[in-house]
This record gives sequence, C-alpha cells and structure tokens, in this order.
Amino acid sequence: MNAPARPGPPYPTAARLGVIEPFHAMALFRRAVAREAAGRSVIHMSLGEPDFGAPPAVVAALDAAIRAGQAGYTPACGITPLREAIAAHYARVHGVDVAPQRIVVTAGATGALQLACALLLDPGSEVLMPDPTYPCNRHIVSAFNATTTLIPAGPEKRFQLDAADIAAHWGPRTRGAMLASPSNPTGTTIAPAQLQAVLDALRARSGFLVFDEIYNELTYGAEKPRTALALGDDVIVLNSFSKYFCMTGWRLGWMVVPEALAADVEKLAMNLFICPPATAQHAALACFAPESIGIYEQRRAEFARRRDFIVPALRELGFGVPTEPDGAFYVYADCARFGVPSEQLADRLLDEAGVCLVPGIDFGVQDAQRWMRVTYSTSLERLHEAVERMRRYLATP
Amino acid sequence: MNAPARPGPPYPTAARLGVIEPFHAMALFRRAVAREAAGRSVIHMSLGEPDFGAPPAVVAALDAAIRAGQAGYTPACGITPLREAIAAHYARVHGVDVAPQRIVVTAGATGALQLACALLLDPGSEVLMPDPTYPCNRHIVSAFNATTTLIPAGPEKRFQLDAADIAAHWGPRTRGAMLASPSNPTGTTIAPAQLQAVLDALRARSGFLVFDEIYNELTYGAEKPRTALALGDDVIVLNSFSKYFCMTGWRLGWMVVPEALAADVEKLAMNLFICPPATAQHAALACFAPESIGIYEQRRAEFARRRDFIVPALRELGFGVPTEPDGAFYVYADCARFGVPSEQLADRLLDEAGVCLVPGIDFGVQDAQRWMRVTYSTSLERLHEAVERMRRYLATP
Repeated sequence: MNAPARPGPPYPTAARLGVIEPFHAMALFRRAVAREAAGRSVIHMSLGEPDFGAPPAVVAALDAAIRAGQAGYTPACGITPLREAIAAHYARVHGVDVAPQRIVVTAGATGALQLACALLLDPGSEVLMPDPTYPCNRHIVSAFNATTTLIPAGPEKRFQLDAADIAAHWGPRTRGAMLASPSNPTGTTIAPAQLQAVLDALRARSGFLVFDEIYNELTYGAEKPRTALALGDDVIVLNSFSKYFCMTGWRLGWMVVPEALAADVEKLAMNLFICPPATAQHAALACFAPESIGIYEQRRAEFARRRDFIVPALRELGFGVPTEPDGAFYVYADCARFGVPSEQLADRLLDEAGVCLVPGIDFGVQDAQRWMRVTYSTSLERLHEAVERMRRYLATP
Repeated sequence: MNAPARPGPPYPTAARLGVIEPFHAMALFRRAVAREAAGRSVIHMSLGEPDFGAPPAVVAALDAAIRAGQAGYTPACGITPLREAIAAHYARVHGVDVAPQRIVVTAGATGALQLACALLLDPGSEVLMPDPTYPCNRHIVSAFNATTTLIPAGPEKRFQLDAADIAAHWGPRTRGAMLASPSNPTGTTIAPAQLQAVLDALRARSGFLVFDEIYNELTYGAEKPRTALALGDDVIVLNSFSKYFCMTGWRLGWMVVPEALAADVEKLAMNLFICPPATAQHAALACFAPESIGIYEQRRAEFARRRDFIVPALRELGFGVPTEPDGAFYVYADCARFGVPSEQLADRLLDEAGVCLVPGIDFGVQDAQRWMRVTYSTSLERLHEAVERMRRYLATP
C-alpha cells in the first residue's frame, strides 16, 4: 500500500499497521468497477452482499421512524424493543431463552467483533482461528494488539476446527477461539457434536468461544439452524442484520454476551460507538414481522437453488469442491487443476472473462493460492452467464 | 459496575476494563428517565444532542436513497460525492483546499477517533489532553492500550492547552495531543495564535495533533469559524454530522488525514467498520444544499440566543462562569459557591428541582467536583423554566 514515491508520514504511526492488511478483494473490486466504467461487463461474485434489499415492511418502518423523529441517540446497547425482538427470535426459531439484557445491538457484526476483542484481549493475547477465516477477525484482533494463531483447517475437516486443534495449539497466552458457522469463506457449517467438543476443550482451559453466526439463518440442509447459545450462557455469539435480513449498508448487528459481562460490554459500547444507528434500529423491528420472515425464507430457498446450480457447475469447469457447502452464499473452490495461483486466476477471470471472484489470500496463508471464494449472491441467470464465461475462458488453450 | 453479588466472568477479561469508565451522565440520565416514567418532570440539560432534527431536504434525500436501493455496502472511506461535498464545504466556508482523498467518512466522530487511535498509538504510547476533556477521548486511547496524560487546564486559560503545556508534559512515550475547539464540556474555543503555538511545539517533537472540530460550525463570536486544516496538511481533524448538522442517531462523521496516511486509514476503516452507514451518507449530501445551510444557520442563531440567556442566568443563580463560552452548546459552570461537590449537587438538582446536569467527574480529575456541564440544547422556554426551578431549589435554606 505504501508506494515508495509517496511522502512519509509527518509523525510516527502505530506498529499494528505492519500486520493489518487491506482486503485484496477490494483492489480486485476496484479493477472490476474500472472495467465496467470502460463499458465492459462484469459479473460480481466477490463481495459478500445479498442481491436483495430490505423488504417493504422494513423500508416502511424506516420511513415511519424518520418521520417520527426517532433519529437521536439511543441507549448504547440498542433500543429495548429491538433487544426484546431479537430475544423473541431466539425463542421462536431456536427454542433458546436469551434475556434481552444479554443482547447488545451493534454497528454491524464488525462493531460486535470490536467489542468482543476490546472485552477479551490484552496486548500479546493469542486467539485461535481456523485457516481459512474471515480476514477482519484477525485484523481486529491485531488492532487491539493481540495476535492470531491460524490453524490449518482443510476440506477434510470441512474447514472447521476440532477439539484436538484447541488442545494442540493452546499456549500460555491463548485466551480463546473464534469460529464461524456457516463459515465465510467456505460456506460450511460445523457439526453440532464437534462444536460441543471444541467448547468443552475451551472451557477446560478457561478459554472463551466467540462464535460468528452471521450466516446462521442461511443454511440449506434438512435440519433447522441451531445457535451455539443452546450450549451455554458463556458463548459469545455475533450476528448481523446484513445477510439473512439483507440490510448490509445499514450497519446493524448484534452480539449475545454472558450476563456477568453485560455491564462491561455496555461501557465499552458507549465509549467506542455511543450507540448503533437509530433509524436502522427502529426499521429492523420490522424484520421480525411474519410478512418479512416470509420474504426472507423465500430468499433462503432461492439461495439454496443457486447453490444447487453453482456447486456442480464449478466441478464441471474443473474446480474442486471437496466438501459440500451448506450455508452462507459461498463456495470455497480448489483451483489446483488450473495450474496457476488463485490470485493470478482471479486476475485472468476478471480481465478475460469478466467474472470477479476472490482468491484465497484474503482468508489465510495455508494453501491460500490453491483456493478461490465464489460468492453466489447474484441471480441464477447471472450465475449461468458467469459459468458460461468461465467455460469459454478455461477452454481456451 | 461489578456488584459483588453478580457471578464472575467465565473466562479472563481484558485489563483495559479496569481503566475504561462508563459515562456518569448515563447513570444520571437513567434516573432522570425513571423519574419521568414516574410522572415527574425533568428538563434535560445533560446529553450533548441538539433538540433539532435533520432538515426536510435531508429527510427527503434519505427517502430517495432508500427507494433507490442505495443501502448496500459503500467504499470504506465513504461515497465519493459525499467526500467531494465535504471538500467543497471546506473551500466555501473556510477557504481551505482539501483533497477529497484526504476525507474519510466515518461511523460518527467516535469512529473517526477510533481510527485515529488505531493509526497513531502503540501500547504504552501517551497522548496529551486538557483536563477537562470529552471522556471518550481518553477511553478510546485506553481501548488501544495507550495512556492519556491529563494536563490541568482551568478557566484562566479558557480550558485549553498552550505550547508551554506541551513542552512541560512531553515525555519519551508521548506521541501527540488531542484538543477540541470549541471544547466539550467547556464550550470555549482556542485562540488561533495559541493553536499555532501548540502545533509548532508538537511539530518540533514529531508529535501529532488530533483536533476535534465537532462543534466548529457552532460558534457565536464575531469571527467566522476557522479550521485547523488551514494550519497545515499534517493536522488530523475530526468532525461530525451530529451537532451542527443535527444527525446524532445517524452515526455519521468524518476525519481529514494527511495524504501520506490515507491508505493506512482506509485499510483500518475497511477492517474495523467495513463502511459507514450507506443511506445516511446519501442523505447527508443534502446537508450542504443552500436551503439546509439556511436552516442550520437559523439554528446557530438560536443557540447563540440561548447562550446569551443562560450564561448570565447561571451567574445570577450563584454559578461561576469565569470565562465566556463561545461555542458548542455547553457552559462549564463553577459550583464552589454552593459548598457541595458537583456530583452531589447534580443529584439534588435532579431529585429536588427536576433539572438534569452533568457533574465534572465525567470530564476529568482536576477540581472535577467543582464543575458542572450545563447543556443548552433545549428551547429558551425550557431554559427559563430550568433556571426558575434551580432558583427555587437553591433559595431553599
């Protein structure tokens, strides 16, 4: 990022800048936008953003809130009705009783992740994560002067950690683990028994589990989604209104914390954020209306149809998909067959085929150049076109 | 915060929780709300929130944005038209040329403050600030494992630091200073020559200046507001759409950074926030329309009228206002005359008179129990009533 020609900073900057990286996907995305500006077509399968917006009831609720002047500061942990609505959602969907006081509404799940790191990590603390993982996780850990231990987690273990990993990588400065199910970038869930064993291994070491359920409502298996909150009040769960609820740019998420830590999280939240966005909170109440849930469930079915198309199509193109993704809107595809690093393949697919994917280097280091994240949050018609474009490009000798 | 009866946390938490405090004002505010719920009246002169909402053009722009589906992720540093509009604002109001690439739109000024700390501070770094100061400043510094050196700044120096303070308190771990003009909680500006001398003293030590201009457009003197950006490209300026632009709950602010640091701030912003709220950004474009600026300037005149009423009224009640506040919507009033700590006086004024003020303990340690922040962001009619209530209470033997 720091090109040699640029003048140096006028005063010293923080050492953490040496370990925090920009998303490589953003550079690729900028090139994609430049390509479009030049009149050439791009099919975007890179950003993790649903192609659906907020349903009508949510937009109407936003209108009503703004006209009622509900745009001032709110309590630091969010408005009480929204915390209660989220609690009711856990009861209804998951059969889990979560006290509203344990629910902290945040400025996106990223805000929740910041609060979790500020709550749990000292300088030099270590956090276990699978490799591959969502890049913000380790960079926010670095922002708070702690470090990440990336544990290789390949397709043979559905890209998830297990209890043996916790035991093998636990050290004197390790404080806990961050997992996600379904995972970004892999779209794979963790098996309930495996998660229970991981949690037991962490508890045995007085370690925390920060569990990212941002895509928890976007799963396509036979079983209903579960929440790790069912496993105990000590799990810190992160969630978001961005994905299932299709409100990315509204910057609204939430976390669930142990009751004993709620006051600490509140004081961090008021200092780091003042409060989450007010009108978005009022609008989000309408996410839980039956008509909205009906729309979200139709969309979930549509994501399932897209997955059912794209996974075999990718395999047919020569990508490896060794373990079935069953959630989120990502496939983590093996590019070994094409004989070039995935970073280079992503460049070529953008330049030659007009298809924008994200190479594995954003998500980890272990075999990163072998893997590519394919996002299927675009229409089936566009996915068909993308596959056709890639087929033509890959068939070229 | 941690009552002894509560169960302890299930795993270790961060040491910073020992130094980050909740706002005392929040506890008072909760009591005020409880009092209102019990059917008793409270005049709120505590939270730093304008009693005006966003003007019609801004609300209309929000409507248009949400109907146009402009609610997705935006670039991490904000949409280009808003960065350009802020740059044009600097050119028009201040006659200062600021490249849009130096302007970073943030999740409130609090988001900007986080980015500044993540950019500049290592564990153990020290930052100079005046005492009193806005509490989030030092708590966000603590969040990033750095420390604050509070320098007593009494009314004789308009509660602002000078060059001699920088020289006297500079140590081997000091990295720079954070100042605000007008200041929260004091409502006092720093004289241009004094600011220039402070900046020179910082530059001589390769120190940064983070300068909070959140209230810069809310000044009531004869001179037009200035921006510290006029003093050089190395000053990091924080600003907000919350105060002058009356968009508190929208969580939108901005910072201006040296060009050499723009790429570093961008990578921090994408990791810590993804992006600022999207619809709020589109709506904020309408803040700069002439009709909106006309409304904001009328409101500024109204704040000036309130100040002109409340300052002599407080003096007549027995509060000391030794230096004239000329900006924001705060008076920092000396309570020595009443013979009780300001914390206790605030409790009594709430309980006995139904007037909610904020005691000095939120803003510093030096003589904190002597001072009270009086917020005049409520109507003249309510301010008259508040003064009458306090007069009756204080006259009681």
